[in-house]
Amino acid sequence: MLRFGVLGAGRIGKVHARTIAASGKAKVAYLADALPKAAADLAAEVGARVASVEDIIKAKDVDAILIATPTPFHAEQIEAGSNAGKPVLCEKPVSLSVERIEQCLKVVEKNKTTLMIGFNRRFDPSFAALQKRLRDGAVGSVEMATIISRDPGPPPMDYVKLSGGLFRDMMIHDLDLARFLVGEEFTVVNALGASLVDKAIGAAGDVDTAAVHMQTASGKICVITNSRRATYGYDQRIEVHGSKGMLRAGNIHNTTVELANGEGFREDPILNFFTERYGQAYANEVLTFIDAVTNGKTVAPSGFDGLQAQKLADAATLSWQTGAPVKVS
Amino acid sequence: MLRFGVLGAGRIGKVHARTIAASGKAKVAYLADALPKAAADLAAEVGARVASVEDIIKAKDVDAILIATPTPFHAEQIEAGSNAGKPVLCEKPVSLSVERIEQCLKVVEKNKTTLMIGFNRRFDPSFAALQKRLRDGAVGSVEMATIISRDPGPPPMDYVKLSGGLFRDMMIHDLDLARFLVGEEFTVVNALGASLVDKAIGAAGDVDTAAVHMQTASGKICVITNSRRATYGYDQRIEVHGSKGMLRAGNIHNTTVELANGEGFREDPILNFFTERYGQAYANEVLTFIDAVTNGKTVAPSGFDGLQAQKLADAATLSWQTGAPVKVS
Amino acid sequence: MLRFGVLGAGRIGKVHARTIAASGKAKVAYLADALPKAAADLAAEVGARVASVEDIIKAKDVDAILIATPTPFHAEQIEAGSNAGKPVLCEKPVSLSVERIEQCLKVVEKNKTTLMIGFNRRFDPSFAALQKRLRDGAVGSVEMATIISRDPGPPPMDYVKLSGGLFRDMMIHDLDLARFLVGEEFTVVNALGASLVDKAIGAAGDVDTAAVHMQTASGKICVITNSRRATYGYDQRIEVHGSKGMLRAGNIHNTTVELANGEGFREDPILNFFTERYGQAYANEVLTFIDAVTNGKTVAPSGFDGLQAQKLADAATLSWQTGAPVKVS
Amino acid sequence: MLRFGVLGAGRIGKVHARTIAASGKAKVAYLADALPKAAADLAAEVGARVASVEDIIKAKDVDAILIATPTPFHAEQIEAGSNAGKPVLCEKPVSLSVERIEQCLKVVEKNKTTLMIGFNRRFDPSFAALQKRLRDGAVGSVEMATIISRDPGPPPMDYVKLSGGLFRDMMIHDLDLARFLVGEEFTVVNALGASLVDKAIGAAGDVDTAAVHMQTASGKICVITNSRRATYGYDQRIEVHGSKGMLRAGNIHNTTVELANGEGFREDPILNFFTERYGQAYANEVLTFIDAVTNGKTVAPSGFDGLQAQKLADAATLSWQTGAPVKVS
Repeated sequence: MLRFGVLGAGRIGKVHARTIAASGKAKVAYLADALPKAAADLAAEVGARVASVEDIIKAKDVDAILIATPTPFHAEQIEAGSNAGKPVLCEKPVSLSVERIEQCLKVVEKNKTTLMIGFNRRFDPSFAALQKRLRDGAVGSVEMATIISRDPGPPPMDYVKLSGGLFRDMMIHDLDLARFLVGEEFTVVNALGASLVDKAIGAAGDVDTAAVHMQTASGKICVITNSRRATYGYDQRIEVHGSKGMLRAGNIHNTTVELANGEGFREDPILNFFTERYGQAYANEVLTFIDAVTNGKTVAPSGFDGLQAQKLADAATLSWQTGAPVKVS
Repeated sequence: MLRFGVLGAGRIGKVHARTIAASGKAKVAYLADALPKAAADLAAEVGARVASVEDIIKAKDVDAILIATPTPFHAEQIEAGSNAGKPVLCEKPVSLSVERIEQCLKVVEKNKTTLMIGFNRRFDPSFAALQKRLRDGAVGSVEMATIISRDPGPPPMDYVKLSGGLFRDMMIHDLDLARFLVGEEFTVVNALGASLVDKAIGAAGDVDTAAVHMQTASGKICVITNSRRATYGYDQRIEVHGSKGMLRAGNIHNTTVELANGEGFREDPILNFFTERYGQAYANEVLTFIDAVTNGKTVAPSGFDGLQAQKLADAATLSWQTGAPVKVS
Repeated sequence: MLRFGVLGAGRIGKVHARTIAASGKAKVAYLADALPKAAADLAAEVGARVASVEDIIKAKDVDAILIATPTPFHAEQIEAGSNAGKPVLCEKPVSLSVERIEQCLKVVEKNKTTLMIGFNRRFDPSFAALQKRLRDGAVGSVEMATIISRDPGPPPMDYVKLSGGLFRDMMIHDLDLARFLVGEEFTVVNALGASLVDKAIGAAGDVDTAAVHMQTASGKICVITNSRRATYGYDQRIEVHGSKGMLRAGNIHNTTVELANGEGFREDPILNFFTERYGQAYANEVLTFIDAVTNGKTVAPSGFDGLQAQKLADAATLSWQTGAPVKVS
Repeated sequence: MLRFGVLGAGRIGKVHARTIAASGKAKVAYLADALPKAAADLAAEVGARVASVEDIIKAKDVDAILIATPTPFHAEQIEAGSNAGKPVLCEKPVSLSVERIEQCLKVVEKNKTTLMIGFNRRFDPSFAALQKRLRDGAVGSVEMATIISRDPGPPPMDYVKLSGGLFRDMMIHDLDLARFLVGEEFTVVNALGASLVDKAIGAAGDVDTAAVHMQTASGKICVITNSRRATYGYDQRIEVHGSKGMLRAGNIHNTTVELANGEGFREDPILNFFTERYGQAYANEVLTFIDAVTNGKTVAPSGFDGLQAQKLADAATLSWQTGAPVKVS
């Protein structure tokens, strides 16, 4: 029974704590949150005790740390957990600064501790199944991947301003998926962006509509499109073309009901919210971490995956700002 | 170049005459119609001469007869064509009377001439491909077939009154398809019917909504549903379950356009009219006949197929009228 | 917090006990099972105590009874629960005997207690949404309903022999759905059956392949097809035609992954097992009961619904045995 | 009855001549081809006379010119037709040289004659319907368009070497569609390319896999992906996102047949060849030209559209070659 210390009792912290509590293989021993009531409520629900971050990281009866605090705390908490010799599962991103990530990864590397980054989409059952079939050769050698990600609507302006921008906040998921699907590092990134959904987003120096294409040294191409608008639900699709065929995975409708009449055939909108669309993905992410730590398996996505995705997000941001392609090392 | 005498220049006569003219392998030599102008117009279009039915059947420069006249003329024209030694393609049905069909088939049998009945749906590219895959064993041994046929709207009451009723006029196509798909004769027929679309149809002694299920001696089952109403287009679907899987074939939408918004995902209605939905089927029917006559191949659906479908339609009618299952020999 | 006494800790008992435990609005106070270990394990998991059926029904700290014992015990346990003044949720069927059901319902009626029958499919999110849209008039007046239900494979022969036959064991779900969708009572039932999947089923006096069509007094038609075989998963579909259009709801694939290559476009098989396909339905069923009992709402499906479905199943069985339509009062 | 002079009796010349002959509103009066037999055969089929290009252009009984000769002849034949005062429908492209196109358009402008360029995809029934719904505001203001075009296989190397490269030969269709769908001029073009399908294509200085994204002055984005490989048929899809929703149009399968078994649900490959996929588009293109000339309507796509697409193709080629974005005026 793996004993977790969970840092952060916000939306994602709750989701993860409940998965741990229901796993049958792990439990939440301690919980911390800046808001005492949030920590107390969740602790009561999952049978945990409330403690400070420092105490949790030091605690002898904590085997693993799950970090779901705000982004600015991630790197130092990873380092503290690693210095305490504990495996860490940290929500993305490690940091908005590539330099800070590199510094943090050096600590983890020196300590030889486990670090897994929570890129939840790799654990979506359909995306994971698709990627496994890719690796098993179902479509031969990968030539081109396309990733579509469209949010139902823009986040609040307060969030936008602190987010690091669409490429670092939203597209980073797709940039990680691109590496996951294509299986090679991208060496050049080209970005276009615009604020077509809400001019205030543009005024804040960000975009709400974007397209990126990237290429690996061997020539493989990935195309990503993002928008902060999708009137029909949370649009999440991937499509990968290889030398022997194509694999794609897509959206899930609210129900399977279809109405046919003189206007045509109408299916329901698709699942609208990320906790619903990726609910199983979040659970599988945590269960994978529990399994890896318990059974000594290698974890992915690793800290290095987190670093690479951040580099691509920085490159996309710079490409959009300068109007020129950006090389990535 | 097979020289056709085409009897009837109505809606279906036109469709067939144009197919012959464009086939490159046959031509319309002569055309007859009770309406001189209809005959003259179509003759001009396809490069044929107008003549009387009698003269066409006797003509030395006519190699084959295509009958697209009203149903009451079919049997005698088939007999006349057969007595003149000519192969005949006749639109369904041979007659509304099973006795008359049997009499007619005896003439054809005695003359050993070719007779093909125009059950066009067997020639729909998707239905034909499905049936071929069935025969090739794609789903093993057939266990159950389902046929859905729904007209966009009821025919005029004048037509209803002369039609022989829904089971003989509309469902007869599905009854033929049932034999085509299942590959065995049905021995028992059960019918339900109602007039839910237009009470005037019920008042005229007919139904506009019907369900039939039938069984073969070996136990295979076919279920047919019909309606004179489909607000979303002309609904034509088949589904066959076998010991190793299922094959189905369906409708074609007006376009491939799909609209997604807050109301969901909407595809176009399906093709609405039988000449559009089965345009390729009509053409393939005539081309199959031309090929069979030219190259001495066996034709199907045969006169016997026409007889069996009519027997099933009579049985369905009787089952509906009596509320009891009807055995078919 | 509604306190349940759960009778039966088998497959369905477990599913329901877990739903109750996770509901936040009810808890499993006591559990009974003929197998002491099964009862003890489940009790430990959901925080309940083990007791005898008799003690549970009498217990003052039990507010409601959930019956998931084998069918032969249902009627007497319903009566005992009702006599103790407790609301009862009983898995289908009340009994394989219509007379026994009627007797049982009289007890419930006399006691004016609540009885809900577990026809789980009414609670499938897609089927429930479809039925709500039907009642809201989305397709006008219902004219024809089609229900397809195909199991992935036949049950063990031991089960077959005690099941009451396909019509009472398997199709009874569809017969209840038919009433749920069409909203009128059926007055005539016609059945066909065969043993095409496994001859041993036929030898045991049962069928594995069946078609039923039924009609209401106003003429509405329902067609049901069943098979104990579906190589591609657990096939569960409904389609309802009304005067203004069609509503249908269907299957859920294992993933959304699609593979395209020279052989075509291939989607995954559909969910294969009823606990997976109807997992949400089972949960919603219990949550609906909890809500109804807690808030004094009327429950459906009621004991009367259970009775009517059983009458239709008897009629279908008799129709299959006699080869004649059977009237239902 | 509009009298056409058709220049070129190759694959596309035949398609167009047959459409004219069957239109009922026009006829092929004269035909020219460098290969006398090709001209004679097609002339016999459609009831035309063979003549030289010069004589056809001068002929008093020729009302319109259709140019389906090899690309190097297009510009001079357009000019000759225009100088003879005749409306011209010319297959794409006018020329591989933007300067030559501009020169040619000046002649047409001076003569005030009609010139239509044969970008056939605008006339695909689904793409045309989608664009009409866009213009009618079905999804509000356009924000992003995605165009996928994948050939079933690479063309012969001889063709590749003379083609002007993938961007000018293949993607030019998508570049025209991009303008058609988005309704604004693109001001910047970014291209990636690789030879992943056949290294010989790369050795010849071309690519077989490419991605382009472009942006208009107002910020609208279009993403195009191309490949010379698609194992599952000729892949042709468009998707347009607007402020109020999404419109997309896609591929057509060979049949509607679907097979379900333990491996899943399999649909047929999609139409494999461009004459089949765009057969109706080619016909509609010619019929639109006939209607425009006969009834004095404006034609589109115009010579200007041909020029703009060529500029975008040049920009994409240059962007791929230099690895930098290219501005378009």
